[in-house]
Amino acid sequence: MDLLITNARYAVTSNGSDEILENISIGIKDGKIAYMGTDKPAAAKTYDASGKLIAPGFINSHTHLGMSLLRGWAEGVNLQGFLERVWAAEGAIMDEATCELGTELGALEALLSGTTTTMDMYLNPAATHRGAVRVGLRHIAGPIFFDFPGLDGLQWEQRIERAHQWKAVLAEIGGPYIPTYLMPHSTYTDSPENLTQVAAIAKELGVRIHLHVSETQAENDDVATRYGKTPTEVCRDTGILDVPTIFGHGVHLSDSDMAIAASKGASVGHCPGSNLKLGSGLARFNDLRKSGIKVGLGTDSCSSSNDLDMFSVMRMAAHVVALRQSPADVDLTSIVRAATIEAAHAVGLADRVGSIEIGKEADLIAIDLHAAHLTPVHDVNALLVFAAGRGDVTDVWVAGDQVVANRTSTKIDLTDLIKRVNHRVKALDPLR
Amino acid sequence: MDLLITNARYAVTSNGSDEILENISIGIKDGKIAYMGTDKPAAAKTYDASGKLIAPGFINSHTHLGMSLLRGWAEGVNLQGFLERVWAAEGAIMDEATCELGTELGALEALLSGTTTTMDMYLNPAATHRGAVRVGLRHIAGPIFFDFPGLDGLQWEQRIERAHQWKAVLAEIGGPYIPTYLMPHSTYTDSPENLTQVAAIAKELGVRIHLHVSETQAENDDVATRYGKTPTEVCRDTGILDVPTIFGHGVHLSDSDMAIAASKGASVGHCPGSNLKLGSGLARFNDLRKSGIKVGLGTDSCSSSNDLDMFSVMRMAAHVVALRQSPADVDLTSIVRAATIEAAHAVGLADRVGSIEIGKEADLIAIDLHAAHLTPVHDVNALLVFAAGRGDVTDVWVAGDQVVANRTSTKIDLTDLIKRVNHRVKALDPLR
Repeated sequence: MDLLITNARYAVTSNGSDEILENISIGIKDGKIAYMGTDKPAAAKTYDASGKLIAPGFINSHTHLGMSLLRGWAEGVNLQGFLERVWAAEGAIMDEATCELGTELGALEALLSGTTTTMDMYLNPAATHRGAVRVGLRHIAGPIFFDFPGLDGLQWEQRIERAHQWKAVLAEIGGPYIPTYLMPHSTYTDSPENLTQVAAIAKELGVRIHLHVSETQAENDDVATRYGKTPTEVCRDTGILDVPTIFGHGVHLSDSDMAIAASKGASVGHCPGSNLKLGSGLARFNDLRKSGIKVGLGTDSCSSSNDLDMFSVMRMAAHVVALRQSPADVDLTSIVRAATIEAAHAVGLADRVGSIEIGKEADLIAIDLHAAHLTPVHDVNALLVFAAGRGDVTDVWVAGDQVVANRTSTKIDLTDLIKRVNHRVKALDPLR
Repeated sequence: MDLLITNARYAVTSNGSDEILENISIGIKDGKIAYMGTDKPAAAKTYDASGKLIAPGFINSHTHLGMSLLRGWAEGVNLQGFLERVWAAEGAIMDEATCELGTELGALEALLSGTTTTMDMYLNPAATHRGAVRVGLRHIAGPIFFDFPGLDGLQWEQRIERAHQWKAVLAEIGGPYIPTYLMPHSTYTDSPENLTQVAAIAKELGVRIHLHVSETQAENDDVATRYGKTPTEVCRDTGILDVPTIFGHGVHLSDSDMAIAASKGASVGHCPGSNLKLGSGLARFNDLRKSGIKVGLGTDSCSSSNDLDMFSVMRMAAHVVALRQSPADVDLTSIVRAATIEAAHAVGLADRVGSIEIGKEADLIAIDLHAAHLTPVHDVNALLVFAAGRGDVTDVWVAGDQVVANRTSTKIDLTDLIKRVNHRVKALDPLR
């Protein structure tokens, strides 16, 4: 073994039977989990996990890491006011280097909080990807598409060109394996004709799609007025759903939308914190799962959530179920799965990450249980969903590479990053 | 000065104009704030607060600390199932020493999370108070009243006797100043006759009252069936509201209830996390405040919340406003105030704590802003409500006494406490 994680008090496996193992050691070889048991096979390095809980790294299935620079920028406003504030700020600072910087910040926050994979969507994806890979994150990015030239200034034909180059860009940047994605923004910012073109390219290239679908009722109304369809129906009719697709949000999916999405194998990145904060509505978490859709959890961006804490997201996912249905309908195992293995299914990585099983890549986190707020332990899933938090994560591995050691990045210097961020956001001062 | 906290990056004062000061030093003498400014008056000790935010210690205005032993004990159940699980567990273990142990655990968690005052209600209040005072918490406890002999086995007359002795018990135990309270459990567990008696004693002794009011619609329905009144009307008609009273929860107060409570000077301890988790409903935070009622935030017990994290409570308070009204109705300053100065008003301590002002007792917390998830700072209140967390609190003072230093209690040993807790809760094994 390259590494043996010894004597974990618990390992939350998120395997097929959701086993929670006790007093377990986990061996890692060539970045993969190669041993689980109570023996101590020889290893080049050991990590003492006594008193700790080992879990699969969380998978944030919908976010916009670059917007971490806008944390707390648009408060106490409705959606329209929110968008106006955010767009003005993005217009002022979001050049390529700034997108990279914001993503570096978001990636660092994500890793320190126990998230090892993010499904990201933002401007300048090559730059954002470089920033995130530098910090060690398994960062899923992809070319973004709008009908109009966005802040990145690209014309439609340039977006198409970039899509064709994307696999080569990913190969050049390197980093942990990710599936290849194209990211048309949504059915209200991309015309059916343009979505059809993106879908055809995705099919041709054999890649996946990530877009926003039914985040708000207003979006549904807008799309219905324009096309007489739901956003999901537009996705179906433009061929988007002919490739594996993840819907960001999916708050206002009807039963019929769910049936369509499930039959096409589409998944949902559910962002309860953002939905609650922006008043977007309460997604039908249990109904989505029952329909056969794979549901992952996500944070959305730091301008709407305002952090990237998947613990807080799990807690809010539980609250959303209690609000829509009842507390007795909250299945904590399903919430933990939505942050781990179901999210891995949702983003197309279930064969590699999302659970602790022999053969999986070692995307793992260690949670220190030696804390008043984590004592006693009557229910491990309840502990993860309702009591543990970002501050309890001590160590993080991505594909066996220890990217966080004792709450500190092994890849980049926090002090230097904070300095660069604070310097850059000074450019927002005229907009305050 | 006994202590000078120097160079705080921010001080969130919660004073009358909600000032947020920058680059400020705070001097403490005889447990009180004696200096605020940019000079460096001589001091016996200094604390370097560069890069930190100093805030008033949070005031948890409704909780049951002893139940920290039941964290995660009753999950995925409706209220009835919840009560059955919890009552069985309490019946099995909650003797006097166990109440003290649970409260010690809760008090430690509270302090490490930045809470300096708790409005607690539990069995064996003298024991719980001893436990909390040992850890350094400003812990408001009081004799509890039910019509029936509770788990403490007391008959009504013994409860009355205990009420008369309570001031002497508090004086004997010592600890930071707290107002004296009597704690009849609720209008559905105490008859109007008994409430009338408690109110008369409270008046005679010149003390305050803490009870549960309108936590659920079912409670309102129950009380309406029995008495043809709302719980608030029962409080008014039994004389409870003739002394300063705090309602735990107050989720289902009508406009008329609010008018009654406001005119009598009653306050509310609003517990959004517990209400969301147990499906109790969405309290009318803004309406309560508009009616003139002082509203503090609280966690409720760890069996329903499942931690004592006031950061998480602030976030959920904001979400409850967005759910009931809209995101544009969320006033972040009002949320921070509800965790600090308004809570101080609600529990009867506003002349001593809840804000950073000259003459107030030094109940203060230091939050380390040197973190990815707290960068950049565009909005300090948004940072506190939506991004900061328990793990960012490094140091805590109660009346100038440093009870937490560098994330560690200066009063008790965490390892020993965890050991004692884990040993005691083994007695619950037969109930699993």
